[in-house]
Amino acid sequence: MTDLADIADVGRDARRGGYSRHGFDHVELELREWFVAEATRRGLDVRPDRNGNLWAWWGAPGPDAVITGSHLDSVPGGGAFDGPLGVVAALQAVDLLRVRGFQPSRPLAVVVFVEEEGGRFGVACLGSRLMTGAIAPEKAAALTDPDGVSFGDAARAAGFDPARMGRDDEALGLVGQFVELHVEQGRGLTVPVGLASSILAHGRWRYTFTGEGNHAGATLVEDRRDPMLPASRLVLAARAAATGGARATVGRIVPNPGGTNVIASSVDVWLDARAGDDARTREVVAQITEAAHAAAGDEGCELRVTEESYGDTVYFDTGLAAEISAALGGVPALPTGAGHDAGILAAHVPTAMLFVRNPTGISHAPEEFAEADDCAAGVVALATTLERLAR
Amino acid sequence: MTDLADIADVGRDARRGGYSRHGFDHVELELREWFVAEATRRGLDVRPDRNGNLWAWWGAPGPDAVITGSHLDSVPGGGAFDGPLGVVAALQAVDLLRVRGFQPSRPLAVVVFVEEEGGRFGVACLGSRLMTGAIAPEKAAALTDPDGVSFGDAARAAGFDPARMGRDDEALGLVGQFVELHVEQGRGLTVPVGLASSILAHGRWRYTFTGEGNHAGATLVEDRRDPMLPASRLVLAARAAATGGARATVGRIVPNPGGTNVIASSVDVWLDARAGDDARTREVVAQITEAAHAAAGDEGCELRVTEESYGDTVYFDTGLAAEISAALGGVPALPTGAGHDAGILAAHVPTAMLFVRNPTGISHAPEEFAEADDCAAGVVALATTLERLAR
Repeated sequence: MTDLADIADVGRDARRGGYSRHGFDHVELELREWFVAEATRRGLDVRPDRNGNLWAWWGAPGPDAVITGSHLDSVPGGGAFDGPLGVVAALQAVDLLRVRGFQPSRPLAVVVFVEEEGGRFGVACLGSRLMTGAIAPEKAAALTDPDGVSFGDAARAAGFDPARMGRDDEALGLVGQFVELHVEQGRGLTVPVGLASSILAHGRWRYTFTGEGNHAGATLVEDRRDPMLPASRLVLAARAAATGGARATVGRIVPNPGGTNVIASSVDVWLDARAGDDARTREVVAQITEAAHAAAGDEGCELRVTEESYGDTVYFDTGLAAEISAALGGVPALPTGAGHDAGILAAHVPTAMLFVRNPTGISHAPEEFAEADDCAAGVVALATTLERLAR
Repeated sequence: MTDLADIADVGRDARRGGYSRHGFDHVELELREWFVAEATRRGLDVRPDRNGNLWAWWGAPGPDAVITGSHLDSVPGGGAFDGPLGVVAALQAVDLLRVRGFQPSRPLAVVVFVEEEGGRFGVACLGSRLMTGAIAPEKAAALTDPDGVSFGDAARAAGFDPARMGRDDEALGLVGQFVELHVEQGRGLTVPVGLASSILAHGRWRYTFTGEGNHAGATLVEDRRDPMLPASRLVLAARAAATGGARATVGRIVPNPGGTNVIASSVDVWLDARAGDDARTREVVAQITEAAHAAAGDEGCELRVTEESYGDTVYFDTGLAAEISAALGGVPALPTGAGHDAGILAAHVPTAMLFVRNPTGISHAPEEFAEADDCAAGVVALATTLERLAR
């Protein structure tokens, strides 16, 4: 049986703990090969699309299809469940439907989206954004990883032509409904399975503070323009601005050159900010940016702010959620602060998410966990959902 | 003629700017080969010691030798002068002494110390510390670079046996006097050449804040234990503590895992702190550490503090400085905030430093600079010094 244990050794991060699996890196490519083999073994017909996503079809591809799936990449040092659980559960649901003797009357496919976390190229949901036209293919191709490799070059090395990337109405046109199963990422579920109601508005902003690189010993404090000072004040300002359910986080900061005995010449800080709606999110980011500009000015530094990605609040299709909940005998619906490919697709097709309970609420960390029984309940729920939709 | 231009293309750092040349990396190994070739071409006899340093002898090695030299490594994204200028000037001084027809009556050698900046393995002056016994060889061998490669393994790959490293009384016993020429690292010189009077007490401390890794979107602010918060407060506390001529700098900070949409599980922050004497330096670090503990407590984080290296104030030999100044017709003496191999050797043998004027005071950065005329004046001063001492 296909199981998360099959890939438990792939992409372990010895330094950070957990897993580091990123779009088109050798680890994600190995996982994609594993997926192709598992799908093929089931007689599913695997077809890559132009944007690096994989589609495994049960029967002939066609319009008004029922699609499920998720992603195989992780954040740096992430957990085992975020992403792969939705892919494994989809394959297991196909197995379960066959055991039940179910024959879909609508086309059905399992999809794997590339670079959902943005852990390598900085923009989350890159595969689904490209497919839906939410990001320009030229912009996507130019994104670079920390080693300076562009997404375009990485895609080319993986066998995809960046010149052919971009909005794919052919692929998108086949999707009748999309259901993504995912581990819940807070402590919002007291039962094994729930449905998503909405996703917080969220985005990523990059703040580049530029000062003057110099010697940490020979340079008088009064002669310094040290960008680490305003960068640190930004971190504190982000926390101060995250009130009333908003979230603002700095998890990534890179001083350049990054030497112990060197005053940094510049510092890049990435802000992840989310709130209940667009206006509130913009307000939080504006407050942080104002504080960052003031801090930069105090230290004689320059500041450049770049919005790397942004998505407004997503409300999942209430009709689809009601239909699924009814089929499952009534399950709770809850909002989430986490972004997903389902959030990107929701703007185009009726979309739903099934959440599997997370006992600690930890996610994006090695400690991320879901009980085996809850995962199994998730597979049953997904199979029942697919059966209901594709009958 | 041997010149800095010879090595201008070796080890350029395209991402950071400037140069990244680190102990036993392929760039530093290339520079060492270049040094061996340049020394050999002059008929100097190059002998590595047990600790990875290179000695190029004019005539037979022997006791009471006059030694000059510096290092070839840099900080990450460093300048062209810090280190290599002292090596190039030493070779040029040998040339000049030969033009003058000088024949030393004492043994004379040019030395290249390994990993002076600590840019790869974290401890500055590693080669001179090992030779003088200022660091235990087991501790040095266990130091790791950012990729997890140990100094012991890197040394072995470069042809040195880590088991044979450590205090080298044979090598140290030959050193009668040591003179290091170096680019000045502040704006302390208004004439081309000066002498060092002292080096500030200085050290490096590593602060590891541990919180709880989690999802940047799904985790409520009130549920967080985010180590980036106390890490940022440490940066601000360092600046606040650096009063009255003391310096305290954070140029390196590494959140783990370092994902944009991930609350860090831990953050490493390196503090570089320096002051006029031991007591004041300890006071500055204690003040910062107290603030760091308070900040960690406020966020429910743990804090571990490690002293990675420390050196008390160095006062260079006043008799030697007076003799050199007299030979040069009177040059100014000035203190420096920068550490040097000469500072390590000063505890064992009469040691002096010649500084070449730095017009902007910038160092440890790509903009580090010295005028060609000033560098030439430095070579003449060094040759005159060696002639005076080795006559």
